[in-house]
Amino acid sequence: MLTGRSPSTESVERARPDVAVIGAGPIGLAIAWRCAVRGLRVALHDPAPGSGASAVAAGMLAPVSEAYFGERQLTDLLVASAARWPAFAAELTEATGADLGYRTDGTLLVGLTGDDLAEARRLWAYQQGLGLPVTALRPTELRHHEPALAPRVRGGALAPTDHQVDPRMLVPALRTAAQRAGVALVPRAVDSLSDVDADLVVVAAGCGSAALTGLPVRPVKGQILRLRAPGGVAPGFRHVIRGYADGEPVYLVPRTDGEVVLGATVEERSDTGVTAGAVQRLLRAGVDLLPELAEYDLVEAVAGLRPGTPDNAPILGPLPGRPDVLAATGHHRHGIVLTPITADLIADLVVTGVPDPLLAPFGADRFDTPDRRARVAGGVRVPAGAVGVGAVGGFEPTMEEDRWS
Amino acid sequence: MLTGRSPSTESVERARPDVAVIGAGPIGLAIAWRCAVRGLRVALHDPAPGSGASAVAAGMLAPVSEAYFGERQLTDLLVASAARWPAFAAELTEATGADLGYRTDGTLLVGLTGDDLAEARRLWAYQQGLGLPVTALRPTELRHHEPALAPRVRGGALAPTDHQVDPRMLVPALRTAAQRAGVALVPRAVDSLSDVDADLVVVAAGCGSAALTGLPVRPVKGQILRLRAPGGVAPGFRHVIRGYADGEPVYLVPRTDGEVVLGATVEERSDTGVTAGAVQRLLRAGVDLLPELAEYDLVEAVAGLRPGTPDNAPILGPLPGRPDVLAATGHHRHGIVLTPITADLIADLVVTGVPDPLLAPFGADRFDTPDRRARVAGGVRVPAGAVGVGAVGGFEPTMEEDRWS
Repeated sequence: MLTGRSPSTESVERARPDVAVIGAGPIGLAIAWRCAVRGLRVALHDPAPGSGASAVAAGMLAPVSEAYFGERQLTDLLVASAARWPAFAAELTEATGADLGYRTDGTLLVGLTGDDLAEARRLWAYQQGLGLPVTALRPTELRHHEPALAPRVRGGALAPTDHQVDPRMLVPALRTAAQRAGVALVPRAVDSLSDVDADLVVVAAGCGSAALTGLPVRPVKGQILRLRAPGGVAPGFRHVIRGYADGEPVYLVPRTDGEVVLGATVEERSDTGVTAGAVQRLLRAGVDLLPELAEYDLVEAVAGLRPGTPDNAPILGPLPGRPDVLAATGHHRHGIVLTPITADLIADLVVTGVPDPLLAPFGADRFDTPDRRARVAGGVRVPAGAVGVGAVGGFEPTMEEDRWS
Repeated sequence: MLTGRSPSTESVERARPDVAVIGAGPIGLAIAWRCAVRGLRVALHDPAPGSGASAVAAGMLAPVSEAYFGERQLTDLLVASAARWPAFAAELTEATGADLGYRTDGTLLVGLTGDDLAEARRLWAYQQGLGLPVTALRPTELRHHEPALAPRVRGGALAPTDHQVDPRMLVPALRTAAQRAGVALVPRAVDSLSDVDADLVVVAAGCGSAALTGLPVRPVKGQILRLRAPGGVAPGFRHVIRGYADGEPVYLVPRTDGEVVLGATVEERSDTGVTAGAVQRLLRAGVDLLPELAEYDLVEAVAGLRPGTPDNAPILGPLPGRPDVLAATGHHRHGIVLTPITADLIADLVVTGVPDPLLAPFGADRFDTPDRRARVAGGVRVPAGAVGVGAVGGFEPTMEEDRWS
């Protein structure tokens, strides 16, 4: 356990944190907050907090509509994290007084054309087969839920438990909560794990995690638009709306202040340029589903880089051979919804040394390769005397369980 | 004439300019420059030079492709002004050393669908009937001129004398030229003609001209996009390309630095919001004509307000009843191409008092109404002793010819 500390050593140890978290996106902020609340001394390293993927993200809390073929374990994690969101949001608002833009109006799933609807129905059937709440709607019911939908939208369904939060409100709230709990923000970039001096290091650096750890986290570009209803009024729809429009997967997230987030591309590219073709396709899909959007102001077009992994699921747990380094990264499209469970499970692991069974499918060892280990050995300088040196030197994953107890 | 001034009165008159120009867009700047070069003392009033329609404009010098049914006199003026552009550009570059982005690669006129081509051909026939150089191209010739055109573009024509300049390079050059010629820039807004103390006032205030003069100049909104070829290279086409794409009138202006201007909407609105629907239509039209644009970066989406008039032609000459106030406004879509001739004719009029016959169709009196005269009488305070007081008081246009000699 990392909670105990004798008074006699406190002054000596003051400069050295118990836990250093690298990356102050929502994942890193929430982990730092949770650890600090449990009494640990936490340093959080980031030259530009909140400037990564979360600044671009739409903030859908959508375990049901994000449940996709072949990702059963990920879906379970999404569902478990979404279930924690109400309490997490309440606790965060309690700690900070901040509005998070948290809305529980539910999500309408739609198909524009007959082909789109057929594709959507295949997915809804899969989701229903998992026992997830997806209810097909008759056309009149669909219009009853959202009269602003285009008449040509062929059909839809309701996912009442898929909600939303505004990441641009969430991140400042998490930062306030973390700082109030005593987290020390270190506004410097970390180029190597050896630059960080702490008993434990948590890498929550999004796409930057690959260079630090050798883990297979790659950038997955997403372009996204922000529109605004004219006249400063709320958008003419209240549900998150997502589906297919002439083959284009698209979502629309309405905020109470009039903003509508329209996203997003999924591109295997690492640049952050906003391209004419992507903007055109997103706008076309959005306007086809909700004609009133044509008169909305286009106020922002931006691209971000999601931290993707080979199986689209996050990496949560110790690096092979480095029990003093925990990964909490690779959240891909799911960083916002997975923030509560990631923070809770990682903080639990830090404090108790015992991994929650929920973490089992998401260990870093599932991607371990000799290549990765060689890269880590070459790229990371470990200070003399640090736990895990032998393991890295020998390229062998060694779980030193007593480190956690 | 306004050129002569006896040495004995020079010190007294130093503070008072011969000419005050209101508005430092390209029109006002060029008039001020031309007047200063001719030895007049010129004050140019604008709180934000170059911040109006010209900051948004594409800069096509296109008398041929802008020649439209029912606008014969305007077309003549466009042709006459375009003919002055080479010398004007050379003189401006000589005076400033500035690159203006002036390009003479010509304009390709295209129709995407059969319907678009039919519509375009109707216009080309009209333009050819005026004796303007428009040459229909066979499809192979069209591709030879621009291989990047989409295969589905049905047909096109060449307007070799329709050129381009970059307004964002033109305006700073004009400002430099004007200042080097001695023009005094007064960075304050003018709310009333009576705020300006000069022998002669030239109103070149774009959409702001209506409030100053009562002339029927109204804002015509244009939304326009700027794209950029990836990798910092020049665009994959060199002609200006304009035409119709599924009914959408559109133009594409390639700059040597990689920028492509894609425009523009024509909307009877006075807001400057960028709307999702307009951006989507422009991008769709652009990408349909030139598929490579899909991979270009979208770097700017902006709206401006053109100063439109009831007959789409500018207003050039004295206000009815106010021979001391010359209008040079209402240039609508044509401000850039009309800059040289407007500057020359207005400067000539200022200096000689004799209006060039080219000005005859564009006088302010063609829109004169009792309503306008009443508004001017109510809105403009004329200092005691100023020329034209009586005329304003009597609501009667009075040309005081000796004022100009």
